[in-house]
Amino acid sequence: MVEQHADVILDNAKNCDVSFLVVGDPFGATTHTDLLLRARQAEIPYNVIHNASIMNAVGCCGLQLYSFGETVSIVFWTDDWKPDSFYDKILANTTRGLHTHCLLDIKVKEQSIENLMRGKKIYEPPRYMSAAQAARQLLEIIQKKRVEGCEDTELAYTEKSVCVGLARVGSDDQRIVATTLQKMTTTDLGPPLHSLVIAGHLHPLEVEMLTLFTDDLTLFENVVLL
Amino acid sequence: MVEQHADVILDNAKNCDVSFLVVGDPFGATTHTDLLLRARQAEIPYNVIHNASIMNAVGCCGLQLYSFGETVSIVFWTDDWKPDSFYDKILANTTRGLHTHCLLDIKVKEQSIENLMRGKKIYEPPRYMSAAQAARQLLEIIQKKRVEGCEDTELAYTEKSVCVGLARVGSDDQRIVATTLQKMTTTDLGPPLHSLVIAGHLHPLEVEMLTLFTDDLTLFENVVLL
Repeated sequence: MVEQHADVILDNAKNCDVSFLVVGDPFGATTHTDLLLRARQAEIPYNVIHNASIMNAVGCCGLQLYSFGETVSIVFWTDDWKPDSFYDKILANTTRGLHTHCLLDIKVKEQSIENLMRGKKIYEPPRYMSAAQAARQLLEIIQKKRVEGCEDTELAYTEKSVCVGLARVGSDDQRIVATTLQKMTTTDLGPPLHSLVIAGHLHPLEVEMLTLFTDDLTLFENVVLL
Repeated sequence: MVEQHADVILDNAKNCDVSFLVVGDPFGATTHTDLLLRARQAEIPYNVIHNASIMNAVGCCGLQLYSFGETVSIVFWTDDWKPDSFYDKILANTTRGLHTHCLLDIKVKEQSIENLMRGKKIYEPPRYMSAAQAARQLLEIIQKKRVEGCEDTELAYTEKSVCVGLARVGSDDQRIVATTLQKMTTTDLGPPLHSLVIAGHLHPLEVEMLTLFTDDLTLFENVVLL
């Protein structure tokens, strides 16, 4: 991981050309910014080659990128840690009729608390959040909101909201399913990586594209069309 | 242009493999959706290969993609047609502290009204909006808002707002300049294509990256940090 081996990359780059390959675009997040800043400081010349990223490839489901609002990240919940600060961002998007792209959590090279405390470098098996699990967490949030007195019309989404699950985008076995958030909780898209989009208002051409990815013809009965 | 030659592409695809190359990602907008829908209808197998797009490569300026709101398009104004509906979208973004990516107008294969009326297929030279011109149009909008009684604190941006101009991203001579919107109006970034970002609240690491692209050290004095 770049966080751990930046020194090696930069040291080697003083003597020879070093390539550093990443998944997606190198500047999707600030993860690789630090590497670039340190290279500049050390006066090491660099060249960035941009790449397709899920941030734009998500458009393959037929929802146009111009109609997406702020992207959110959904993290794995534990029994006593259930952050939901992304809910307000989704609400701000859907209020404006915008789609929300939910990036789903990835846990690689994580240590259990026990191994971490004992200083044992034993890592847990990698975990990748599925669209189904993300949908379950999303629905748990609105159940809480309802208990707090929130009306369905005030919610960012409901069980009936149209969403799109995407898996392994760009690979030969990519899969895209458009359905309701409720049905997404039991939809198996297969191996990772998954992504989930909560649809905002839909353009007729977006609806036409989404129908390619659903067997539920009633899905679009209640959507707001642009 | 695909709008004009979709039939040729689809006809040929019945007999042999046809490649259709696009700038950016094929599904950034719905432009190519129609081609895909028609291919499916004609039962022509297709394969999409995703590509880097300015929609994600814009991250090379150091602003992280997660902090962008809705993308807007700024079109060339004429003397009597000055659409500014994107202003409210920028306002909604900046109110939430989000960056706004402004895609700038491109006019290719446009006919003058005279040639259009006479049915002459004579096309005007291509025009590409510069970041400077976009900044001028953006500032003209807030001057109008002020005349209408808008206070500076209510505006989506002012002359002093931090913005980033990007030109020819991904090419060897790409150029990135961070400055104020006022100074952007007279900043020459060279040949097209240009893009413009209006910054929202900034993460310290974003500020650190932007300082690589500015000679104005006072630029970040008034920005809201995350």
